[in-house]
Amino acid sequence: MLQDRWFEDYVPGTVHDLGSVVVDEQEVIAFARQFDPQPFHLDKERAEKSAFGGLIASGWHTACMTMRLIVDRYLSEVSSEGSPGIDELRWLRPVRPGDQLTVRITILDARRSRSRPERGIVRSQTETLNQDGEVVMHLTSTIFIRRRNQKDAE
Amino acid sequence: MLQDRWFEDYVPGTVHDLGSVVVDEQEVIAFARQFDPQPFHLDKERAEKSAFGGLIASGWHTACMTMRLIVDRYLSEVSSEGSPGIDELRWLRPVRPGDQLTVRITILDARRSRSRPERGIVRSQTETLNQDGEVVMHLTSTIFIRRRNQKDAE
Repeated sequence: MLQDRWFEDYVPGTVHDLGSVVVDEQEVIAFARQFDPQPFHLDKERAEKSAFGGLIASGWHTACMTMRLIVDRYLSEVSSEGSPGIDELRWLRPVRPGDQLTVRITILDARRSRSRPERGIVRSQTETLNQDGEVVMHLTSTIFIRRRNQKDAE
Repeated sequence: MLQDRWFEDYVPGTVHDLGSVVVDEQEVIAFARQFDPQPFHLDKERAEKSAFGGLIASGWHTACMTMRLIVDRYLSEVSSEGSPGIDELRWLRPVRPGDQLTVRITILDARRSRSRPERGIVRSQTETLNQDGEVVMHLTSTIFIRRRNQKDAE
């Protein structure tokens, strides 16, 4: 996580490129076994006979791989205070082992919290793309971010 | 996964109780280490000093634990064909190690696909509750479900 990024540093209209991750087949299967054991996420032979024509990552796995890049390169441990939720999460294309995913965030708006003046509320559009530049997933998130130099008791 | 449930069996207005899962502290930390390494998901001491006052599960982990119950007790491997997305995912209350989560799904509507007549489209409201009966997370999902006795080429 970043060491020093606060609410004031999340500027509407800015775009953040968060780097990439390669989808690993063993991780796809391990994730599926734990959380989403459907044949097309779990079993290569059965996946080939499925509507997807081969093994694909759980959509939740794609979201989690995306989250890892967000934590590493977008949030700061000094100011991140969680999220109340996500809107319009869309899985647009299959994600397959060997794909290289990149993540891009666009800040939509940022406003101060009325009920918690020590923090702000940031809405962002997150897009996850594959190596062909196709958007495989997008979502809109809301996050709570602490303001710089604000005390709780303010 | 269930062995024999098809589109025709997803009836709007019905409510499905999907059982429960106990949140395991080591799994909370392991999930955080892999996908969401924020201090309040990862480190008990730092979590106690955070806005959450103690270790909480990643919201994505709560979604994934919920998905596991959905796969085991709501979807069927004969008919489940994935999901185009999720709306209004909300994390309403912290989920902590030791919590017992139960999952309840209400089917909102079910209609046949126009472009893919061999399947239907089911929208559901999923609620995840803790042992005190409080909703900790909810979301609306769309899933594709194959119709009974329909061939691809229909």
